[in-house]
Amino acid sequence: MPKLAYLGPQGTFCEAALRRLAPDAERLPAANVGAALHAARTGEADGAVVPLENSVEGAITQTLDELAWGGPLLITGELLLPVEFSLLVRPGTELPQIKRIISHPAAITQCRGYLEREMPDALVMAWPSTAGAAQEVAAPGSPYDAAISPAIAAEYYGLDEFASGIGDRSDTVTRFVRVSPPGPLPEPTGADRTSLVAFLRDDHPGALLEMLSEFSVRGVNLTRIESRPTGDGIGRYFFHFDCEGHVADARVGEAISGLRRLCADLRFLGSYPRADRVATQIRAGTADDDFTEAAGWLERIRNGQA
Amino acid sequence: MPKLAYLGPQGTFCEAALRRLAPDAERLPAANVGAALHAARTGEADGAVVPLENSVEGAITQTLDELAWGGPLLITGELLLPVEFSLLVRPGTELPQIKRIISHPAAITQCRGYLEREMPDALVMAWPSTAGAAQEVAAPGSPYDAAISPAIAAEYYGLDEFASGIGDRSDTVTRFVRVSPPGPLPEPTGADRTSLVAFLRDDHPGALLEMLSEFSVRGVNLTRIESRPTGDGIGRYFFHFDCEGHVADARVGEAISGLRRLCADLRFLGSYPRADRVATQIRAGTADDDFTEAAGWLERIRNGQA
Amino acid sequence: MPKLAYLGPQGTFCEAALRRLAPDAERLPAANVGAALHAARTGEADGAVVPLENSVEGAITQTLDELAWGGPLLITGELLLPVEFSLLVRPGTELPQIKRIISHPAAITQCRGYLEREMPDALVMAWPSTAGAAQEVAAPGSPYDAAISPAIAAEYYGLDEFASGIGDRSDTVTRFVRVSPPGPLPEPTGADRTSLVAFLRDDHPGALLEMLSEFSVRGVNLTRIESRPTGDGIGRYFFHFDCEGHVADARVGEAISGLRRLCADLRFLGSYPRADRVATQIRAGTADDDFTEAAGWLERIRNGQA
Amino acid sequence: MPKLAYLGPQGTFCEAALRRLAPDAERLPAANVGAALHAARTGEADGAVVPLENSVEGAITQTLDELAWGGPLLITGELLLPVEFSLLVRPGTELPQIKRIISHPAAITQCRGYLEREMPDALVMAWPSTAGAAQEVAAPGSPYDAAISPAIAAEYYGLDEFASGIGDRSDTVTRFVRVSPPGPLPEPTGADRTSLVAFLRDDHPGALLEMLSEFSVRGVNLTRIESRPTGDGIGRYFFHFDCEGHVADARVGEAISGLRRLCADLRFLGSYPRADRVATQIRAGTADDDFTEAAGWLERIRNGQA
Repeated sequence: MPKLAYLGPQGTFCEAALRRLAPDAERLPAANVGAALHAARTGEADGAVVPLENSVEGAITQTLDELAWGGPLLITGELLLPVEFSLLVRPGTELPQIKRIISHPAAITQCRGYLEREMPDALVMAWPSTAGAAQEVAAPGSPYDAAISPAIAAEYYGLDEFASGIGDRSDTVTRFVRVSPPGPLPEPTGADRTSLVAFLRDDHPGALLEMLSEFSVRGVNLTRIESRPTGDGIGRYFFHFDCEGHVADARVGEAISGLRRLCADLRFLGSYPRADRVATQIRAGTADDDFTEAAGWLERIRNGQA
Repeated sequence: MPKLAYLGPQGTFCEAALRRLAPDAERLPAANVGAALHAARTGEADGAVVPLENSVEGAITQTLDELAWGGPLLITGELLLPVEFSLLVRPGTELPQIKRIISHPAAITQCRGYLEREMPDALVMAWPSTAGAAQEVAAPGSPYDAAISPAIAAEYYGLDEFASGIGDRSDTVTRFVRVSPPGPLPEPTGADRTSLVAFLRDDHPGALLEMLSEFSVRGVNLTRIESRPTGDGIGRYFFHFDCEGHVADARVGEAISGLRRLCADLRFLGSYPRADRVATQIRAGTADDDFTEAAGWLERIRNGQA
Repeated sequence: MPKLAYLGPQGTFCEAALRRLAPDAERLPAANVGAALHAARTGEADGAVVPLENSVEGAITQTLDELAWGGPLLITGELLLPVEFSLLVRPGTELPQIKRIISHPAAITQCRGYLEREMPDALVMAWPSTAGAAQEVAAPGSPYDAAISPAIAAEYYGLDEFASGIGDRSDTVTRFVRVSPPGPLPEPTGADRTSLVAFLRDDHPGALLEMLSEFSVRGVNLTRIESRPTGDGIGRYFFHFDCEGHVADARVGEAISGLRRLCADLRFLGSYPRADRVATQIRAGTADDDFTEAAGWLERIRNGQA
Repeated sequence: MPKLAYLGPQGTFCEAALRRLAPDAERLPAANVGAALHAARTGEADGAVVPLENSVEGAITQTLDELAWGGPLLITGELLLPVEFSLLVRPGTELPQIKRIISHPAAITQCRGYLEREMPDALVMAWPSTAGAAQEVAAPGSPYDAAISPAIAAEYYGLDEFASGIGDRSDTVTRFVRVSPPGPLPEPTGADRTSLVAFLRDDHPGALLEMLSEFSVRGVNLTRIESRPTGDGIGRYFFHFDCEGHVADARVGEAISGLRRLCADLRFLGSYPRADRVATQIRAGTADDDFTEAAGWLERIRNGQA
């Protein structure tokens, strides 16, 4: 039974993601993304589950930077988790008693409509974490009456779910990834994703176009690109890429080898099944068989055969 | 004398940036980036100064999203401000008395070396803002002894600068921009930058490559690209671009017109002098004169002249 | 009634093409392509009809070079003429009497199957031109009995068509163009072609890719590209391009203006209706309306309007 | 001692080229390019020397088509031969006696200035070949007095060189290639050229751009591109490419393997030393060592190593 670190405390969306990605794993809450990844690097845990991006907030930059700069880790799985908020209260609490509500500011923002409609007179206050808010509400003598939290926080802290699905929009999603120390990659499934971090050799005009061309020439589609500062001044960036396919695919292997030759450094962050199971569309001439045929042909002509 | 909103409270780096960008302006502190831009949109202020990116932390996503989605505003100037931290104390405070230090967590992180070296036993605690920390330390009866803050906060809150330049690295920079309601653009200077927000018509593979090609074919260099989620689910992004040159330049005008045709929507965020005054290198065949010559030629051949 | 020069003598495929392109024109045979174009340039004729390429033999390089280097002329129409050979004889000639056959070597090659099947014992000899061969057979006292010629040569020289359609393959086609002195262009029809000659500024690696990109970025398809030597040594070339669309189309105008800026010289050879009447497929975002909308937008943003 | 076929008769520029390319070879004159290549294919000769392009006339299309469609042959060497014309006469002939001059029409054209200046009253007549003209002048009882020919024709036919270097321009060059049956390739020299024939899978817009991108992404420069008709109608072409480098170079091998995957058919025509000995400039990241490093890296990451 593997032990996986995650962004705690207990009851976070990250824990909910971990439960789905690895139902049988032992769970180790960590204070922040860096601490969770540190546990995976040191062997304190066998891996970690951390958020990578959110469909409204965008990239979780701490995760991007930790994966780019820290000791090597590989993404071995991903999960798209709908962000569904519940209003958690101590057992027995009724509507008129809900006077002070706490949660993370992003969660408050996303539940603004519900709060104004259902409990317009309640005082709503910021708290560092949604799960932490539930923990606080559950604390003996807490001055707060309700927390906007993931539903799973209720069980941890002995709270009741006063209302569920209270977010203003129902389609917000967070993408979580499971990371592991370097080791055997997940098998290709035909619906895979590969993640990379590219550091430019020199930041000349057109460098980004050149990098994208390495993918497009081999028919490899990019699904995400994020620029991040190198720390060496405004205007100096490195790039996170996600592309379709598995590094074991010939076209992906050749594309990222090309990127490797173009870059000062290229870090491979893993190949893993896509959460949405959408199979990769393979452009004519870029399937493994096409590469095999071309490699055989190249060998023949190099040997002077017709 | 214009009135400019900024990210307050008094004494922030943002205020320091505003002072340099517009020394004579009246200054209106705002609670957050959204509030500062709102003041510029409603006419409560004549414009605003907000942070856009930091050389270590990266993009200020709240600014990116506000500029992309809110009412139209134009960037009319930019400033690169070194991030220099000072340790501010109440007058008369000496080293042994500094037991509790507060600041914004990012500032604490960046001054970790100084703190461990000079005052290893002090308790260091998080505060929502660096200027706010100075304000708190200045408050009568405050339990805190020192704040890591911008130097300019000292004058506002009657504090002394116990130490300056205490950051672990001396080259961190934040890029601030001045924004104004739509109106006449700054004149081209030969060392300009143009900012844009591009929303794809459809998010097909290769769309980003197509967008970059619109720039490269006209010899326009990109200096920054940031992807941001559209909110419509993981994998759906829009893009912030900065390119070299001024929209009044023929090559820039044609490039972004091409981008406009390619996009579902393209928002122009302004053309303005670069803070670093680096003149744009113009590729052969892409100067205004070249466009003028080609336009004259095109008119002639359309008229059937040789 | 216009007078048009053509590649003579009377009875050539070129004359057949001229008759279809301009049934009412007065026809002026010329000794070669250069002479025909010379007549159009000097005003001796109002224009000329010359062959440009053949589906088996390829480009007619004399035409390409004359159009590139000589005084300016515009292509105003094109025709695809099937190459159909007939065996022409003096009236009354019967099979056993056909002992000596003459024609242009290319025509002999293309009728090899017929000759070997039907008259294996005949002597087949080369002649400089197919129509000239007919002229020779018709001459009093000619030692030759038959000519492989275009059918129309029969009427000129008083010969009979002994057999028609004697070519080994039935689908060979020659593309002829009508050229005129500079003047008003044919109106756009939605199924047009534009011809150009491009001289590189400097023959650096990637120059051809850059030229093609000027077309592809504006969604303009190339239908033909021919390299020709500049005369300045092996490895120095200029290029003939045919693209879809009319120079009056915004996307074509912008593409070739871009090419103009890229090139040491760009010669416009005309926009004219395609012989095959295939309508141009217009890529999303590249129709005239899209260019008009983008131009209006550009004007607004240059004026600082939102 | 190898036997090499060449474009005869004796005394042609092609023979002059052969003598330089293979001084010790036995020489077998052939009636035309097709016959010379046929001899190389059947083993009647060990190879052949044929013209490929001329700096004024352009491609020798018969050679291009023979190499593309006939049985496989490999180019194993190339030579750039200056085209220098001499006026050859029977021994003892003096200026006043030169009344009738014969040569190939292209040679006559290129010596027009000399003829008009030195012997304006002479009658100049066309002959099928420059060497054949010398042969005719040498024939007993010939009505012709002089031939414009390569200098080497003089020795074959017992003629004298009345004048040499009589061409109007001194820099015309013909590129000849030596071809051999499939077999071991010439060793890479660092200044090599590779020749290919590419048949498109489908002739869609942008196909040529895609082909060029296969080269440019790997930093391989094209030095020549020629389009030729497939024979299947106007608008259907195949392409001859020459690129810098040797197929044994990693970047060239990968580029043409990519082209192979893109094409319906790709014929390799050989890698051989450049006649001009210009060393290939290798773009950063595309040397063999870079490919080796990247291949090692790829193998490691596929094995899950960091």
